[in-house]
Amino acid sequence: MKSTATLLISCPDQRGLVAKIANFIYANGGNIIHADQHTDAAAGLFLTRIEWQLEGFNLPKDLIEPAFNAIGQPLGATWELHFSDTVPRIAIWVSKQDHCLFDLIWRQRAQEFIAEIPIIISNHPDLQGVAEQFGIEYHHIPITKHNKLEQELKQLELLKKYQIDLVVLAKYMQIVSANFIKKFPQIINIHHSFLPAFIGANPYHRAFERGVKIIGATAHYATADLDAGPIIEQDVVRVSHRDEVDDLVRKGKDLERVVLARAVRLHLQNRVLVYGNRTVVFE
Amino acid sequence: MKSTATLLISCPDQRGLVAKIANFIYANGGNIIHADQHTDAAAGLFLTRIEWQLEGFNLPKDLIEPAFNAIGQPLGATWELHFSDTVPRIAIWVSKQDHCLFDLIWRQRAQEFIAEIPIIISNHPDLQGVAEQFGIEYHHIPITKHNKLEQELKQLELLKKYQIDLVVLAKYMQIVSANFIKKFPQIINIHHSFLPAFIGANPYHRAFERGVKIIGATAHYATADLDAGPIIEQDVVRVSHRDEVDDLVRKGKDLERVVLARAVRLHLQNRVLVYGNRTVVFE
Amino acid sequence: MKSTATLLISCPDQRGLVAKIANFIYANGGNIIHADQHTDAAAGLFLTRIEWQLEGFNLPKDLIEPAFNAIGQPLGATWELHFSDTVPRIAIWVSKQDHCLFDLIWRQRAQEFIAEIPIIISNHPDLQGVAEQFGIEYHHIPITKHNKLEQELKQLELLKKYQIDLVVLAKYMQIVSANFIKKFPQIINIHHSFLPAFIGANPYHRAFERGVKIIGATAHYATADLDAGPIIEQDVVRVSHRDEVDDLVRKGKDLERVVLARAVRLHLQNRVLVYGNRTVVFE
Amino acid sequence: MKSTATLLISCPDQRGLVAKIANFIYANGGNIIHADQHTDAAAGLFLTRIEWQLEGFNLPKDLIEPAFNAIGQPLGATWELHFSDTVPRIAIWVSKQDHCLFDLIWRQRAQEFIAEIPIIISNHPDLQGVAEQFGIEYHHIPITKHNKLEQELKQLELLKKYQIDLVVLAKYMQIVSANFIKKFPQIINIHHSFLPAFIGANPYHRAFERGVKIIGATAHYATADLDAGPIIEQDVVRVSHRDEVDDLVRKGKDLERVVLARAVRLHLQNRVLVYGNRTVVFE
Repeated sequence: MKSTATLLISCPDQRGLVAKIANFIYANGGNIIHADQHTDAAAGLFLTRIEWQLEGFNLPKDLIEPAFNAIGQPLGATWELHFSDTVPRIAIWVSKQDHCLFDLIWRQRAQEFIAEIPIIISNHPDLQGVAEQFGIEYHHIPITKHNKLEQELKQLELLKKYQIDLVVLAKYMQIVSANFIKKFPQIINIHHSFLPAFIGANPYHRAFERGVKIIGATAHYATADLDAGPIIEQDVVRVSHRDEVDDLVRKGKDLERVVLARAVRLHLQNRVLVYGNRTVVFE
Repeated sequence: MKSTATLLISCPDQRGLVAKIANFIYANGGNIIHADQHTDAAAGLFLTRIEWQLEGFNLPKDLIEPAFNAIGQPLGATWELHFSDTVPRIAIWVSKQDHCLFDLIWRQRAQEFIAEIPIIISNHPDLQGVAEQFGIEYHHIPITKHNKLEQELKQLELLKKYQIDLVVLAKYMQIVSANFIKKFPQIINIHHSFLPAFIGANPYHRAFERGVKIIGATAHYATADLDAGPIIEQDVVRVSHRDEVDDLVRKGKDLERVVLARAVRLHLQNRVLVYGNRTVVFE
Repeated sequence: MKSTATLLISCPDQRGLVAKIANFIYANGGNIIHADQHTDAAAGLFLTRIEWQLEGFNLPKDLIEPAFNAIGQPLGATWELHFSDTVPRIAIWVSKQDHCLFDLIWRQRAQEFIAEIPIIISNHPDLQGVAEQFGIEYHHIPITKHNKLEQELKQLELLKKYQIDLVVLAKYMQIVSANFIKKFPQIINIHHSFLPAFIGANPYHRAFERGVKIIGATAHYATADLDAGPIIEQDVVRVSHRDEVDDLVRKGKDLERVVLARAVRLHLQNRVLVYGNRTVVFE
Repeated sequence: MKSTATLLISCPDQRGLVAKIANFIYANGGNIIHADQHTDAAAGLFLTRIEWQLEGFNLPKDLIEPAFNAIGQPLGATWELHFSDTVPRIAIWVSKQDHCLFDLIWRQRAQEFIAEIPIIISNHPDLQGVAEQFGIEYHHIPITKHNKLEQELKQLELLKKYQIDLVVLAKYMQIVSANFIKKFPQIINIHHSFLPAFIGANPYHRAFERGVKIIGATAHYATADLDAGPIIEQDVVRVSHRDEVDDLVRKGKDLERVVLARAVRLHLQNRVLVYGNRTVVFE
């Protein structure tokens, strides 16, 4: 697979945007392999994702950003530039359940997404063995009401030390503080319900109590307002009166694995553009 | 199709229930064509549905209930007895939208369920034409804050006059009072969200605002606590950032039609057993 | 909704395509409201859909095609140009089943898609009443082994007379000859199976025999090779051992309605681009 | 969880079957915790699954079969009797792909189903490492055109030696001979298509070529007629023109894992009753 550059751009809607952006790439000899756009008419916003091959592109990687600045700034655009040959680094945070952890590691090994997973962080020691099995460092950082502030500082230090780009809360079962998220905003969480149904704790028990016929899982970016962040992906599965809470948990695990993995993959391929509390997913 | 009798039974769980109930039917020469059961271990409850052919059954229809009483009472059972040759009568209540109305009428004509639809009741005159097209009486009963009580009395009179067994709120868009439901509890409603997400008004707008990736519809029995009644059926459809509110409404209509129709059919076939705020659906 | 023009373009992949096409629209003062593209790397093909507002566009409608020719021809492109204010005209072909017919008419009346439906053509007289109910002309053209050739000529005359743009085979249950398709290629068919499973006759019976746990429906463009045309849309529904053939037929009808309606809507919005035996659906 | 006995019974349909079977269990002091039945009217066949607690049951385990014989034989019934405290033993057969293997092992460790997995058999050495990681014996038995007969004898010996109850072909990618299946018929296979679509080799490539919009996976019992055995479970996932063959393979892997795991779990819980080429799945 050849190296590519990807621009994710948001700007006020106006004539000529597609032409201007495409011209920038064409004028520099780039070959576009993916271009998709979306206009949010109500918000007056134009959102686009463009990916092109670096081979044959006249600008060296470090000059692309300043060069595009000359086009983007007059348009009032905000943008991100990513290169496919920069391998992102993930920290997986877990509690006691291993299904999402196992799944993410398996997918990374199977190259379903391209990333490194140098560390696993947990508030419990339970999954140390899984980390060892796959040769990943395991950091046990127990959290109590009293030590949360200082433990979050330790977590932030680890993310810095290991140059982590993305935190994946793979059933971490703890609230990350608003302050933490401010300092490290790239966090994907999996919630075990079809949000906004059953926000908060014990969604499977509450789904059972309510007698729903379908349960779901939701992968979203973590925000200070718990379970209210921009949704990346959701999926559902049928349940019936024959399903006890344990069956909901079991069926839900399959959902959680798949939904979280899809969200992580989409994020790592720079296919998710957040604006307001919404996402555009350029599939 | 031969005539059948169906028993829907709930009773405290205990040994020998299946044997006792099956013996009652066998001893009287009945041929069971469907038997299904469910045990709610936490509630200590046994729930069953048994359907058998009336042909060759030794008891005449009017003696089945007293005869079964001799078995059911000692078990502490509550039960309903239905005969397939008694055609239930439905009143469809609508507001201005016609998709669920059209769909229910089409299915009844196509014999997807067996019922008569003698009347349509609406708080608006808009769908009079549809009623005429299919030769169904249309009763326009406008509701305001001030006349709700007296108008509900008129509605109850109509249900009595036309010997209605089931009210289907096919996008009626009005709250039915607790008092009404007490007097006429057999009401199925379609809610245009995946309950309990987006309880209350404007679910599609709120789903759009929240940026969900899946929307749903829910058919449930109406209870005094709005949108909180026992759920009969739910289904969902994928949406994306490309879908405006109008698209959610359009996609939702297809869901509403199908989910409501399934719930009405299951109810009419006496396949739904309510206990607490839950349903057992014997499919 | 303001009038728009839409270009559907296929051409050999090469650098600068997005820029050239976007420039053509921008240079003439057009405001792009939808642009999507796809590259089939194996086929070396670039496929795109661009839609822009006609208001403020400097070229009058009849000059757009010749003007674009100057760009398209050197690129080796083939393209279609459509205007949203040209209302397409549909002929619905049916046999005896009314569910897809009812559904399409309801959706057209509800403006889920913009089209006129001047005629219904059938090899049986059964659905004449439905046509009358909605004020649509009904042409009964019975087909036998011996008269097929001459009857197809009559059908072609009708399509010409009523200036039909699209034929929708809404459970027509007859094979349309290769010769007919050659003369009138814009035909969408609904097949009542998840193609390529159960190609040909009696798919529900064969699905039942095979004991599948899921059934489907497929909307595709008709081609001389029956059931082998480019697929536009498919969907599925779960079945179980409790479902008899009649239940498969009933469940399948809901699928057929929805799948056919989606395909017709996508086609009418010029979102379907056929190449080889495949479709790109620009949603 | 208390120990239970389960009867899976097929017999010609006749009056009194439910009563007779329930009486047998009740008369011996058994507490039924699950009873479900199905009648295939066309085949004139009654099929049922009954599960009851062994605690308090008056017959010792080894006398249940002869005792039930007195009831079953006059009815012309065939039946299987299973005890939940007999832990079944599985051999997983693989080729080079590890996703189903990993998944099955994870589920067994997570007790999603109760079974022992003493051996993995493969025609390739590739997955030896996975076996070691989880402490399972790995038997590399390479198959060629010339040695198939003798290698199958080795496989049969292993199944015998390890007292295997069920073989799971977890992407084994080899045809098992009719002779082998005759000697060891308890084999579940996962086929990577929505059977009967794309029977045989390379289903993902052929699905891509055909341009389908949905792909699937099928778990079925292996029979001499390849890919034609009784279907236990199927599921599907949407694909689009953006999905290359590699994407179909990746999406398909998630399906294969889940569909195979569900089928294995249903089989191990004695919920699958085969008759003719069909299954009744008592969920």
